[in-house]
Amino acid sequence: MAQKPVIGLLGGGQLGLMLCEAAGPLGTVEIAVLDAEDCPAKHAARKNGLHVTGSFKDPAKIKELAARCDVLTVEIEHVDTEILEEIATKGVEVDGKMKKVPVHPSWKTIRLIQDKYQQKEYFGQKGIPIAEQMAIKSGSERKASLHEVGQKFGFPFMLKGSKGSYDGRGNFKIRTAQDFDSVAEQMGDQPLYAEKWVTFDMELAVMVVRVEDDDGKLNRVLPYPVVETVHEDSICTKVFFPPRNTAVTEEIKIQAQKVACDVVASLWGRGVFAVEMFLKDGQILVNEVAPRPHNSGHYTIEAVHQMSQYKAQLVSILNKVPKNLDLSPTVSSAIMLNILGGAEPTSHDRLANLAEELTSKYMHVFLHQYGKESKPGRKIGHITATGSSSIGQLEERARPLITCVDEIRAERVGGSPPAGTSSQGSKPDPLVAVTMGSDSDLNVMIKATDILEEFGVPYTWNVTSAHRTPEYMEQKAAEWSQGSVKVIIAGAGGAAHLPGMLASITHLPCIGVPVKGSTCDGMDSLLSIVQMPRGIPVATMGINNATNAALEAVRILGNTYPEYVDKMRAYQKRIKVEVLAKDRKAQVTSPRDYLKGM
Amino acid sequence: MAQKPVIGLLGGGQLGLMLCEAAGPLGTVEIAVLDAEDCPAKHAARKNGLHVTGSFKDPAKIKELAARCDVLTVEIEHVDTEILEEIATKGVEVDGKMKKVPVHPSWKTIRLIQDKYQQKEYFGQKGIPIAEQMAIKSGSERKASLHEVGQKFGFPFMLKGSKGSYDGRGNFKIRTAQDFDSVAEQMGDQPLYAEKWVTFDMELAVMVVRVEDDDGKLNRVLPYPVVETVHEDSICTKVFFPPRNTAVTEEIKIQAQKVACDVVASLWGRGVFAVEMFLKDGQILVNEVAPRPHNSGHYTIEAVHQMSQYKAQLVSILNKVPKNLDLSPTVSSAIMLNILGGAEPTSHDRLANLAEELTSKYMHVFLHQYGKESKPGRKIGHITATGSSSIGQLEERARPLITCVDEIRAERVGGSPPAGTSSQGSKPDPLVAVTMGSDSDLNVMIKATDILEEFGVPYTWNVTSAHRTPEYMEQKAAEWSQGSVKVIIAGAGGAAHLPGMLASITHLPCIGVPVKGSTCDGMDSLLSIVQMPRGIPVATMGINNATNAALEAVRILGNTYPEYVDKMRAYQKRIKVEVLAKDRKAQVTSPRDYLKGM
Repeated sequence: MAQKPVIGLLGGGQLGLMLCEAAGPLGTVEIAVLDAEDCPAKHAARKNGLHVTGSFKDPAKIKELAARCDVLTVEIEHVDTEILEEIATKGVEVDGKMKKVPVHPSWKTIRLIQDKYQQKEYFGQKGIPIAEQMAIKSGSERKASLHEVGQKFGFPFMLKGSKGSYDGRGNFKIRTAQDFDSVAEQMGDQPLYAEKWVTFDMELAVMVVRVEDDDGKLNRVLPYPVVETVHEDSICTKVFFPPRNTAVTEEIKIQAQKVACDVVASLWGRGVFAVEMFLKDGQILVNEVAPRPHNSGHYTIEAVHQMSQYKAQLVSILNKVPKNLDLSPTVSSAIMLNILGGAEPTSHDRLANLAEELTSKYMHVFLHQYGKESKPGRKIGHITATGSSSIGQLEERARPLITCVDEIRAERVGGSPPAGTSSQGSKPDPLVAVTMGSDSDLNVMIKATDILEEFGVPYTWNVTSAHRTPEYMEQKAAEWSQGSVKVIIAGAGGAAHLPGMLASITHLPCIGVPVKGSTCDGMDSLLSIVQMPRGIPVATMGINNATNAALEAVRILGNTYPEYVDKMRAYQKRIKVEVLAKDRKAQVTSPRDYLKGM
Repeated sequence: MAQKPVIGLLGGGQLGLMLCEAAGPLGTVEIAVLDAEDCPAKHAARKNGLHVTGSFKDPAKIKELAARCDVLTVEIEHVDTEILEEIATKGVEVDGKMKKVPVHPSWKTIRLIQDKYQQKEYFGQKGIPIAEQMAIKSGSERKASLHEVGQKFGFPFMLKGSKGSYDGRGNFKIRTAQDFDSVAEQMGDQPLYAEKWVTFDMELAVMVVRVEDDDGKLNRVLPYPVVETVHEDSICTKVFFPPRNTAVTEEIKIQAQKVACDVVASLWGRGVFAVEMFLKDGQILVNEVAPRPHNSGHYTIEAVHQMSQYKAQLVSILNKVPKNLDLSPTVSSAIMLNILGGAEPTSHDRLANLAEELTSKYMHVFLHQYGKESKPGRKIGHITATGSSSIGQLEERARPLITCVDEIRAERVGGSPPAGTSSQGSKPDPLVAVTMGSDSDLNVMIKATDILEEFGVPYTWNVTSAHRTPEYMEQKAAEWSQGSVKVIIAGAGGAAHLPGMLASITHLPCIGVPVKGSTCDGMDSLLSIVQMPRGIPVATMGINNATNAALEAVRILGNTYPEYVDKMRAYQKRIKVEVLAKDRKAQVTSPRDYLKGM
């Protein structure tokens, strides 16, 4: 076997642990961890004689690690970039010779990210959308500087330490000018900057893989899907893929991925990067960037099964990213819940039982425990639930897990579990779009939405006319084609062009319902819909039979979501039973009496 | 955290390694491995002070392991069951007291499996289908016994050592009575038995999880999907899910799972079991049983992602199998290829490059290397390719990998790669069923199969009449509903009942094509198909428009298989370009000249 490359890892917490877990089966790379002897990552790393015991902040230890590695990477950005720069540019002494060891992501990236103010200034210069910010002067000028901010941004505003803070540590919300007096106490004399207060609708995040050629030239950036993140106490505790709120349209998702890619393209070196963003009124603002695997990317282990963020970190650092790598999810939906240590060391044990109980055909639950001692608030594991259903349905199924996590937190911090988590945007992505040429068709088409509701199929509905709103029709068809919608149902009467025109624009299966008008007994509608030219099919239903249109949509969805097969079988059984009941009645009733009873 | 249970594992090869890899993220169990210090499993196990160095055949070491564990299991069945029985029933001394340590699967199971002759006799008594066999007498009676077999079974027949053989070692094919003289040389004086020669169509395997309550009562057996296995030099080298050959009908798959479950239910203890079977003319014969994770179950790591055979081994041993566990695959198809050490230590390095190159949106390639030194013929890793397509399409995409594995083998054993592997049953499972009421409809329906072929959609077709062959129609509809078929296309004319009757039986989406008959201009067919009662939808196409029926089927398949979305988009682009070309011609041609040119 070819000699395996060795990646040196600064820091051996849970991110390093999962990196080692990803490296194991590959068998193509060794990881040498610099951290305490008993750190989680060393427990999971394949046994090798390469680990270094010590602090990842100790320059001598970093050099010791570098000497035995082919490349260095970090689990956390709070590392000494002077040493990393020296190792990458001047080298480290090995057998009397200087050996340069590449650092990925680059020490330049890590240095920039360490200074949150400079980082944002840099992104701003690159045209990336960020919240307005101002540096705060130090020492005796600080107070005047704060007043200046208060005047410019108004209250409240956010005061942040430029360096060394994460998981919200070092943030201080300034509510009024009176708070200026507490700044020294809260923040010490560290360098500070102010950020304009952003009231956002929700937080999104995108992991991005940065691929760089051996000559240091950017090759490409590959985004993972967009997720919704929920923060509690400034820690990302819940992740939803896809975002639950339908306000996050396909357009916004594409925009978020684009912004994230722009951010990562503007940096240096290889690896995965987390880009955290605010969404406000359809606008994206970049909030934070982490130059490493991230909490908001844990879900990829199961949901982008071909390439988790950890495997991506390895293959990008080694410049082994498959040419045709595709980061499409392998599941329809996923929810990641952090397990934070509870009030008692055993607080979270019930989560394991719950995970076992809730596992089903429709929801797979994956429990990850990091082997860390449980302390209140400490990240000791996470749970990922995946589904072959919409995120709304998965959230319903995962509700007991979410409640349990919330309860453990409430026991720890006091107070009751947050009520908001579930209602925030719980409207699931639509699987079916129901549309009609006129609102006068609704008394027929209502049967379709009734059936969809009966089967628990998330749907969207609207009115669009092929003849009166051709551009709008085109726009909706394009939107549905790119979104979550898998089947379109269109009803129309007369010269009923809507179903066929939609079918011409989209690749999705389109079901047409001929609506009976005031003339021709509906035959005009039927023939307008069914007699499509070769090339563009419309699945045509009987005249006014919107019920069957929805049932056909459910049958089609059954190919993707097994639960609809089960529901369809149950429905078919039920209608059979209904007819058999009528037959039983017929056996004991004369036809004329039967007719009277109807 | 609750005290973690400790599983003691006898043997630390690649099966143990993957067991440890599965245990890692769970964080709910410790594994203590008994094997050499440097064995693969110990490299992957979470660091703990529990491992025992030594041979898993050494009774003292087994007891040492048992003393520090809550339960024992095995990676290989060739272990001393006397010691295991003693540990389970009498116990092992810990701090002056005897501690009983359960063994899973039971030592009784392992003991039975070790004697291949007794094992089969036992299965035979339980009504499980096996090949005919006869024990061979030992010593001076051996020759007479062999002659007796020759007379009873005819030639060739298979001579097998009852004990201690695996991967085909200890098998000897007796071609003629002359071979009797070589028996001593080939097989020594070990206990032997003869098996009637089985010429099979293919080999199948099913992994089964055995769940047993704490009181030792069988709770349930859960089968994984059926796979096709390919053996070379008596080693399982390739696994296909689902089986490639369409001769393996849904009925046979259900039968194979049932037989495998019967086998495993007849044994004792917890864990996963591999049941290897021969298929001959639709009949199943049990060939071998392994009481542990198995080569033919490697594919589950990626293809039954919620519960690999390794995770299943852990949770069943710990009696933590989720109540509603479902072992449905999470991918449409998978191929597992063993990596055997080649002629050179670096022979298989090209596989890693190939895996990287071939990774795409449609095929995910997962390379597993066990970290073992490469020796010719040694199992040093495996590759699993998964697809969201049929097994036939996946096989095409994975062809370079299969060829590479075959070439590495050919370099090692000499000769050319096997030609047969690919052609054996490469006809993929149908996704669409095309049917019609009469063969006179075929000149219309041929357009549907043309389109399906153009889009590379595997399909099946037949003739069935709702009125003349109602039972046959019912049988086909039921078969398609349970099989790989995802869409039914039915054409019919006149009182065209076939599409609607099929829709009444199946839950699948049904597309109807009204075929124009000699009267009524096709309106009879159209209305017979489209005017279905509420409850049972038929997606109706235009009269004679079988083209659109197939295109609609492709759109529906696009929801499950993204490649058909890409193909449909390309098709729509192509027909657009065709019309635009005609328009360009129109710009430079008078209508009358254009008409003449048509």
